[in-house]
Amino acid sequence: MATPNTFGELDLSIVGIGAQYPPYSLGAGELEKLGTKYYPESAAMKKVLGINQYTGIDTRSSVGMADHPIVNKPQAPTIAELHEIFMSDGVPLAVEAARKAIAEARVDISQITHIVATTCTDSANPGFDHYVAKGLGIAQPVEKVLLHGVGCSGGLATLRTAANLALGHSFRRRQARILCVALEVSTTLARSELDSINELQETRIGACLFSDCASAVVLSNGIGEPTGEPVYQLLGWEHKTIPDTEPDLGFDVHPAGWKVVLTPRVPSLTAKVLAPSFSQLLEGVPGLPAEYRQAADFDWAMHPGGATILSGAERAMGISPEHMRASYDTYINHGNSSSATIFSVMDRLRSKEMDALAPGGRVRDFVVGCAFGPGITVEMCMLKRNLGVRGMGGLQTPPETDSEASRSETGEDQDWASVDLKGSVPDTPEPEVVPASAATTGNEDFVAEAIANLDLD
Amino acid sequence: MATPNTFGELDLSIVGIGAQYPPYSLGAGELEKLGTKYYPESAAMKKVLGINQYTGIDTRSSVGMADHPIVNKPQAPTIAELHEIFMSDGVPLAVEAARKAIAEARVDISQITHIVATTCTDSANPGFDHYVAKGLGIAQPVEKVLLHGVGCSGGLATLRTAANLALGHSFRRRQARILCVALEVSTTLARSELDSINELQETRIGACLFSDCASAVVLSNGIGEPTGEPVYQLLGWEHKTIPDTEPDLGFDVHPAGWKVVLTPRVPSLTAKVLAPSFSQLLEGVPGLPAEYRQAADFDWAMHPGGATILSGAERAMGISPEHMRASYDTYINHGNSSSATIFSVMDRLRSKEMDALAPGGRVRDFVVGCAFGPGITVEMCMLKRNLGVRGMGGLQTPPETDSEASRSETGEDQDWASVDLKGSVPDTPEPEVVPASAATTGNEDFVAEAIANLDLD
Repeated sequence: MATPNTFGELDLSIVGIGAQYPPYSLGAGELEKLGTKYYPESAAMKKVLGINQYTGIDTRSSVGMADHPIVNKPQAPTIAELHEIFMSDGVPLAVEAARKAIAEARVDISQITHIVATTCTDSANPGFDHYVAKGLGIAQPVEKVLLHGVGCSGGLATLRTAANLALGHSFRRRQARILCVALEVSTTLARSELDSINELQETRIGACLFSDCASAVVLSNGIGEPTGEPVYQLLGWEHKTIPDTEPDLGFDVHPAGWKVVLTPRVPSLTAKVLAPSFSQLLEGVPGLPAEYRQAADFDWAMHPGGATILSGAERAMGISPEHMRASYDTYINHGNSSSATIFSVMDRLRSKEMDALAPGGRVRDFVVGCAFGPGITVEMCMLKRNLGVRGMGGLQTPPETDSEASRSETGEDQDWASVDLKGSVPDTPEPEVVPASAATTGNEDFVAEAIANLDLD
Repeated sequence: MATPNTFGELDLSIVGIGAQYPPYSLGAGELEKLGTKYYPESAAMKKVLGINQYTGIDTRSSVGMADHPIVNKPQAPTIAELHEIFMSDGVPLAVEAARKAIAEARVDISQITHIVATTCTDSANPGFDHYVAKGLGIAQPVEKVLLHGVGCSGGLATLRTAANLALGHSFRRRQARILCVALEVSTTLARSELDSINELQETRIGACLFSDCASAVVLSNGIGEPTGEPVYQLLGWEHKTIPDTEPDLGFDVHPAGWKVVLTPRVPSLTAKVLAPSFSQLLEGVPGLPAEYRQAADFDWAMHPGGATILSGAERAMGISPEHMRASYDTYINHGNSSSATIFSVMDRLRSKEMDALAPGGRVRDFVVGCAFGPGITVEMCMLKRNLGVRGMGGLQTPPETDSEASRSETGEDQDWASVDLKGSVPDTPEPEVVPASAATTGNEDFVAEAIANLDLD
């Protein structure tokens, strides 16, 4: 590089965030229903359905329960049938998530300049971003960028790409209001994954982890008309690929959609790359306060790819489940929604419930966002959280006002409120108490062991 | 918009271009072989195979002839089998096209900062851009952006996206050397399209038009280490969607790949949007010389979607086939390679052979790039051609030197030289003579009529 990899005064802010989960919540029993209804007993099926009970996930958000017609045909649905559900049940979620983000951003729809979108569960031309723009009523020309091939890292990849595009507008002294949208409808792939488990007798755990979600953020370059207050300032990012790990993590196209590729090496590979990526991220972001040096000095919005990804990060970085409280909470209550998860985690992190679980009772000003995707790639970013903004669907919490009851007043929280937290997130906001993740520690060990013993021959 | 849609001094240049076609050239007889071998006689098949004789295309570049195993299975290949050929036969073309562009750019591989790629004939995670980077030996972190959902407009969409990303680096006073890569392997979809013709009795002409190609450009933001001379300077761009035209042009995912969506309205819809897009492009690009005002004042690098797209543009914009000589030449000799076509056209435009066909014998300094894609979207850009650079695989032609024999000295031209131009491009470089396209005028009329009579019920 001709110049050091540092970030100056970028003036990039996330001024709105929205997540929209579909209406159904799948307990472990739902996958079991499909596995026992359509497939003979076998060693691999038994093993996967066993792991399914101990993923650490209470419920996976989904466009339908186990009785949904799409997963009850004689065969697994085709990629064309998956596309139909993606359009009918997925795109409205993306429009709703985008509406929430835009409302909070206090940006008129006519001011949106770009849409940077991603999905790994659809492949169509025009892409789904076209229909999101149409659903939002965007009439002006917007520069659309639909990212492909990035799997679970897609959410942060949209943010990084949007950041670069926003700076391109900054160079031209033009206003940028970029809508980032991630949409995944993964649960419809259950039959296809169960097919492969049955036919190949492989311990494939994708169907136990993946869920459906749409999420969105609005990124502003600070030029032009006023917006809502920053929710997070974006200070810098890192994007790298771990050499020679293509076969370890992927999502291969198939007539029945995409097939999950996930080897037992993934948790250790991802854990290993965290420390160097974090160091480089820190080097590139100037001017952090002196008390932000170690990983444990920050809060972490980690993509919860699986329980072992989170526990691996804890060991590698010397952080606790409380540092990743929103990652655990999202994972437990909604599962892994691939690219759409990370903005949901960033949204959840700013809630009072999560603040109550902060390590040592201290909510951090700076947050590290992190996700892994096929390649294997790591996407990492440095965020400065605005502690005055809690995600009230556009209404901000004035710092001087008691906001105890604020979140429960908004409809936005219903899909959270409707989730039975069953003690996995304690009611008592004592920082010392066992956090969300601890209840699943035994499960993590189980999963770690199961993954360590994976037999992919 | 808060600020007018104008471009200032961007200092963006395409410093290298490369195109790589696969080794096989399909005459019209090849599709006919497949159509008659695997399908019963029917009205729709007869009609399509009739149109196939009169597309104006002499040969379509392809990864294989009609006897290739991928199109000689009992069934059309699946999307997973298409992926295998895309990887084995497509990715090496993309690596080679990228090598040519990088060599001409005189940019060391270690200086590449971003890869912006596109394809509509593959859907995998990691995306093919990952393997292009690996094939090139890129070891440093590069920001990768793989565009999806943009079909034939993908090439110019990568250029537009790269331009914005490059300006993001300019804002940070960082060097940007962005590799744009487009790769399409479309001819392997022939059986799937023939299936649909047979089953639905639709006049589907995609299989008559589409071909295989990889192409690449290197875009520089002018900061940092020296590069080769600009081939084209990028002065501005327009990107817009024609409202309510999603059903007219698309590429729908299917277990057998993607199905072409193309209604008879496309040529008239695209022709109609050209004039307003061109006006807006001109408004946004300040400082053009006074003699560049009308469409016919410019050379045109138009994506040759089909003969009627080109003839429609002629009528709508008052330009001649000679203005679009490289588009016709590419179309006639290689077919429509979707997103990968446009960089090939831009490469071909700078050849001596094409200069010899310039309207009124006058090669223009300014070139309008244009492509249409699903949405329907139009991508348009304004390029300033450096007349001293002819695409010699990195060797530039000094303006003061006679370069008569220069192109034939390079291996790069072999795939052009091996094409039998059969009088479709005259040997005599007289601007008044009948150009490439005129020989196909009768065919265009035929195709126009055939398309006008399409029955998609």
